[in-house]
Amino acid sequence: MSPARRLPPAAQALIDGDRRALARLITGAENDDPGAREVLRAIYPRTGHAWLVGLAGPLGVGKSSLINALLAHLRSLGKKVAVVAVDPSSPFSGGSVLGDRIRLDRPPDDPGIFIRSMATRGHAGGLARATREVARLLEAAGFGIVLVETVGSGQVDVEIRQVATTSVVVLVPHLGDEVQTLKAGLFEIADVFCVNKSDLPGADRARRDLTELASLGSVDPGWRVPVVATSTTIPSGIPELWQAIEAHEHYLDSSGKRLEGERRRLTQEILALAESRFVADLSRDPSLPRRVEPVLARRIDPETAARRWWQERRKGRA
Amino acid sequence: MSPARRLPPAAQALIDGDRRALARLITGAENDDPGAREVLRAIYPRTGHAWLVGLAGPLGVGKSSLINALLAHLRSLGKKVAVVAVDPSSPFSGGSVLGDRIRLDRPPDDPGIFIRSMATRGHAGGLARATREVARLLEAAGFGIVLVETVGSGQVDVEIRQVATTSVVVLVPHLGDEVQTLKAGLFEIADVFCVNKSDLPGADRARRDLTELASLGSVDPGWRVPVVATSTTIPSGIPELWQAIEAHEHYLDSSGKRLEGERRRLTQEILALAESRFVADLSRDPSLPRRVEPVLARRIDPETAARRWWQERRKGRA
Repeated sequence: MSPARRLPPAAQALIDGDRRALARLITGAENDDPGAREVLRAIYPRTGHAWLVGLAGPLGVGKSSLINALLAHLRSLGKKVAVVAVDPSSPFSGGSVLGDRIRLDRPPDDPGIFIRSMATRGHAGGLARATREVARLLEAAGFGIVLVETVGSGQVDVEIRQVATTSVVVLVPHLGDEVQTLKAGLFEIADVFCVNKSDLPGADRARRDLTELASLGSVDPGWRVPVVATSTTIPSGIPELWQAIEAHEHYLDSSGKRLEGERRRLTQEILALAESRFVADLSRDPSLPRRVEPVLARRIDPETAARRWWQERRKGRA
Repeated sequence: MSPARRLPPAAQALIDGDRRALARLITGAENDDPGAREVLRAIYPRTGHAWLVGLAGPLGVGKSSLINALLAHLRSLGKKVAVVAVDPSSPFSGGSVLGDRIRLDRPPDDPGIFIRSMATRGHAGGLARATREVARLLEAAGFGIVLVETVGSGQVDVEIRQVATTSVVVLVPHLGDEVQTLKAGLFEIADVFCVNKSDLPGADRARRDLTELASLGSVDPGWRVPVVATSTTIPSGIPELWQAIEAHEHYLDSSGKRLEGERRRLTQEILALAESRFVADLSRDPSLPRRVEPVLARRIDPETAARRWWQERRKGRA
């Protein structure tokens, strides 16, 4: 299975479990560094078997605490786990502070845990690309389970589905009116529902409501979306949440849906990577400024300017 | 200034103030309908003078109530105002429920107000495109002020800046820890800060903190971002908020920054429109499925597959 050709030294260090090499490569992948690209290419044949579990949901539902509880549970089962916390909030500065919210109750030198926060810098598709690449690096480093947490935003939550093998949507018993509007979108990406803060009043009701909604059908007609109640303060429901995630992974394997999902995700990935090359070509096109001026002067409209540009480039003039 | 050529009947109806024609054209623009495209092309020379005021900020800061209060104030000044409420939450279903949150205290047949909610369907750049087009239709129909409200999401809030002439960032006195992380991104798009719910404790402190932060500089070094405290329950601060928005619009005119901003926005618009044409070409490329298979079989990596595709298309083979 594994290729005979020699690996770049950084890739070998990664596979040998060198955490500093891993951290450097993640940074390199985020920065589109040629060395990291080479490693990603070299390790690609060894990847594709990890579980990527996405945790999506509005702000304030306690996703970080839930991740902490899941980490502790998975470590007690002897599993290696990585966490990627994605922060789409500051596209200009590229800063990322979410990682600070994962508060480990484990020894900081536990080799079975790796935590990384990432900023997506507002690129459309940025989350998907960065997360896929970081997950491959983590998998090559021996982390077979990668939990991906995002700050709640409809658009980013949907991107998670383009990456994760299993998507967990986290809600709480009493959501405000405005947050209700988010639910519609979240429903369509859920493989597992989690009612967190289930020690609060209204949890049973919320669980029943979600179960009823889940019974109306899911994105995959062969899978009935389970609803799990959790609390990180009591704590309760954490092993059950993990069992529900495992059940979905087993379903994917036994139904052949894993390969189907992987084909869909890779198609999207290749399309997005090719798109970004063509888009970069466009934004570097020296004719762009002179195409804007007649539009600014209101002599032609933007759509016409764009159509002409497209036609001229297709004819091979640019 | 206005062109001599004859307008399509739907465009003429729009300009004559026919509200049903306006509503139909907005739906047509959202659905990329050829008739609406024709009207957008025809009216384009008459547009470009409206004020597009974006209201961004996290969920729960009371943007809808603030819009209601601004509407009442602007009507008392005799101004025609349109509101576009953008709901990025449900990309799959395309449903939009935010419009329900704008509760008018004005007679429903007031011809000086037009309210519309839109879903962006998760398209990257979808908000920007739809909002620009709807704003042009509204401007042609005589609405010189268009307020654009979004549900709080970092990515969408940033898109607002690609459309709005003035961006108001709305915050409240006590933001939770998680919402603090959103602020970094919002700071970089603010032309005006609004501390809403200023009747709550901590409002003075929040206002001072924001003023201090605003004094550290803004995206535009020539403009000092004002901080306005508002409350829709007392109510207070609404005229002051509008004055701050007007002051920014006057600054744009007197400094020449309006033209500069319009050039930047049109450049982005033309680029995005051309991109979507090339991206559509790509996704229809019949070679895509056979390019995915070797990647699925882990014989080549996604980046290599994308690069080869790009190279072959550039050579004119596809």
